[in-house]
Amino acid sequence: MANRIYNFNAGPAALPLSVLEEIQASFVDFKGSGMSITEVSHRSPWFDDVINDAVIRMKRLLNLDDRFQVLFLQGGASMQFCMIPMNFLADGDSADYVNTGTWSTKAIKEAEIQGKNIQVVASSEDQNFSYIPGDINFNPEAVFAHITSNNTIKGTQWAEFPDTGGAPFVCDMSSDILSRPLDMDKFGMIYAGAQKNMGPAGVCVVIIRDDFLDRVPTNIPTMLRYTTFAAKNSMFNTPPCFAVYTVQLVLKWIEEEIGGLEKMTALNQEKAALLYQTIDSSDFYHGTAAADSRSLMNVTFRLPNEDLEAQFVAEALAHQLGGLKGHRSVGGCRASIYNPTPMEAVQTLCDFMRSFEQKNG
Amino acid sequence: MANRIYNFNAGPAALPLSVLEEIQASFVDFKGSGMSITEVSHRSPWFDDVINDAVIRMKRLLNLDDRFQVLFLQGGASMQFCMIPMNFLADGDSADYVNTGTWSTKAIKEAEIQGKNIQVVASSEDQNFSYIPGDINFNPEAVFAHITSNNTIKGTQWAEFPDTGGAPFVCDMSSDILSRPLDMDKFGMIYAGAQKNMGPAGVCVVIIRDDFLDRVPTNIPTMLRYTTFAAKNSMFNTPPCFAVYTVQLVLKWIEEEIGGLEKMTALNQEKAALLYQTIDSSDFYHGTAAADSRSLMNVTFRLPNEDLEAQFVAEALAHQLGGLKGHRSVGGCRASIYNPTPMEAVQTLCDFMRSFEQKNG
Repeated sequence: MANRIYNFNAGPAALPLSVLEEIQASFVDFKGSGMSITEVSHRSPWFDDVINDAVIRMKRLLNLDDRFQVLFLQGGASMQFCMIPMNFLADGDSADYVNTGTWSTKAIKEAEIQGKNIQVVASSEDQNFSYIPGDINFNPEAVFAHITSNNTIKGTQWAEFPDTGGAPFVCDMSSDILSRPLDMDKFGMIYAGAQKNMGPAGVCVVIIRDDFLDRVPTNIPTMLRYTTFAAKNSMFNTPPCFAVYTVQLVLKWIEEEIGGLEKMTALNQEKAALLYQTIDSSDFYHGTAAADSRSLMNVTFRLPNEDLEAQFVAEALAHQLGGLKGHRSVGGCRASIYNPTPMEAVQTLCDFMRSFEQKNG
Repeated sequence: MANRIYNFNAGPAALPLSVLEEIQASFVDFKGSGMSITEVSHRSPWFDDVINDAVIRMKRLLNLDDRFQVLFLQGGASMQFCMIPMNFLADGDSADYVNTGTWSTKAIKEAEIQGKNIQVVASSEDQNFSYIPGDINFNPEAVFAHITSNNTIKGTQWAEFPDTGGAPFVCDMSSDILSRPLDMDKFGMIYAGAQKNMGPAGVCVVIIRDDFLDRVPTNIPTMLRYTTFAAKNSMFNTPPCFAVYTVQLVLKWIEEEIGGLEKMTALNQEKAALLYQTIDSSDFYHGTAAADSRSLMNVTFRLPNEDLEAQFVAEALAHQLGGLKGHRSVGGCRASIYNPTPMEAVQTLCDFMRSFEQKNG
């Protein structure tokens, strides 16, 4: 029996143990090939099966119709921050951005570096990004409206996607993709670094609609065009094969072990409810996000002081509960409870929190 | 005992079995962390140890002095093709490129897409890229001279790096990095996708000299600037942790199991000599690269006709010798014998080649 902790890391983050064990079991001989998954050619039937199965499962899970393509890129969501304005905004075009935290801010900055015409139509910076803005005046002429669906650092999440009056969303879903079903009619593009909800670091999933592919100019570098990846099933050059393979197994796990996105959502709601209830029923812990903006993925909270927070994180780790320190930019505590985090982990954490409060409260 | 073949893939390619077994053994519990290497935070002591050790070993193996930094990027060498002119060529600057095949051609194209001022100072396209050009008139004013040190598809390699009269090389070493010691005084930057000589797909190593970092403009997207990675030990955003870890283990293998680059080169020379001797001592097989330009990494050869080539590749695989088909763009056969390929694999291949010739010659 392997030594394993309950892992509340914000990303890279916990993966389903059954996925890790499948990778481990076949690691020096992938499906009878006599090679590791890290050694097979990306232009082989073995890898074709992997990437095609990953695409099919993603389409099935998110109920994507033929307008959408599923692509695997490198460089993380951060590379998308520059590719999005570069690919979609020609002279005279404009886009809306909503600023809900660190990652939105970076996305905005990369559009500005390129001198693109964008408007920040709403921001929650006035209250330290602790809430999701409402009543936003979106520009009906915008090519897209950019939002960050879940804010890993601040622990906020769009519970519902608002009506923009026309512009489709381009949405950074790095920290909540596949955590819930989506109405895809609202989206022109979704992108997500895999290392939170669906895999290891090193691959970024892009789900892109055909009319957004039509916007891509031909005079930008080849590797920065979405069309390059769309035309070659993400294999214009060598893709990050191991990361794609791991994503494939996580998608299979959601479909075959969890039973699909409706069940995944129900589990995620149950986990988050238990944890927020533990926080709310105490005067010792307090959540940092506005109640109506709370994330089901990243639960951010504070203790009475920083010394107690440091003690909490250290004692939790001694109890096999890891990754509870808040992001270095904000401090405090954070429990990231992505798809792979089991209910048992959250229950164990809540027990520990009550026990810690009794001793130190 | 695992089922394993002799793997002559051109990339992704064979990795040392001891490296694969170490990854496998610790895959659900990395160094007592209770997490997989795919689950630990990139901002943890566990991953710091991995990336710092990889940098130190790379510096030691290539005898890099303090002018050089070792970076880990994503997007493969193909992303470098656009980043190089974007980062190093300002208005009024020029660079030389030598065209020795498919990958050089792509590097040239990406500079041209950006409208940069480059000169193709030599090309072997007149003879289907079967040789490395000599007597090149490099431009002494060039910011850099770009070459591809080993041409995976055509099976040619620069045996020595010529005198440019001043301009440092920017060199794509994807398919022969760490196969031999280098005189680093000749290089301003070296880059290499890991998936041939040193790891899995999904990470590109960049070795960059300080004066090249000084050239990087501040008005290009953040993720496309080398300075972004240099300032943050390759962790501006989440790096491809698993791929970096595998590279670290391959570097350790070269140092601790092989005994360094001098020994690695001797082994590579011995492997290539045996294979070329088998080809040259036969009228059945013939090498496709000019004798003085032959690669020690990718040995390209033809059989009397395409039917025999297909039969050769299929029968070889039945004898546990995989990946011998030439690149889809050129046909024929190719044995890629990178660092991890053991002498035993080459001996077994040569035995098979003689036996196949006897039956079909």
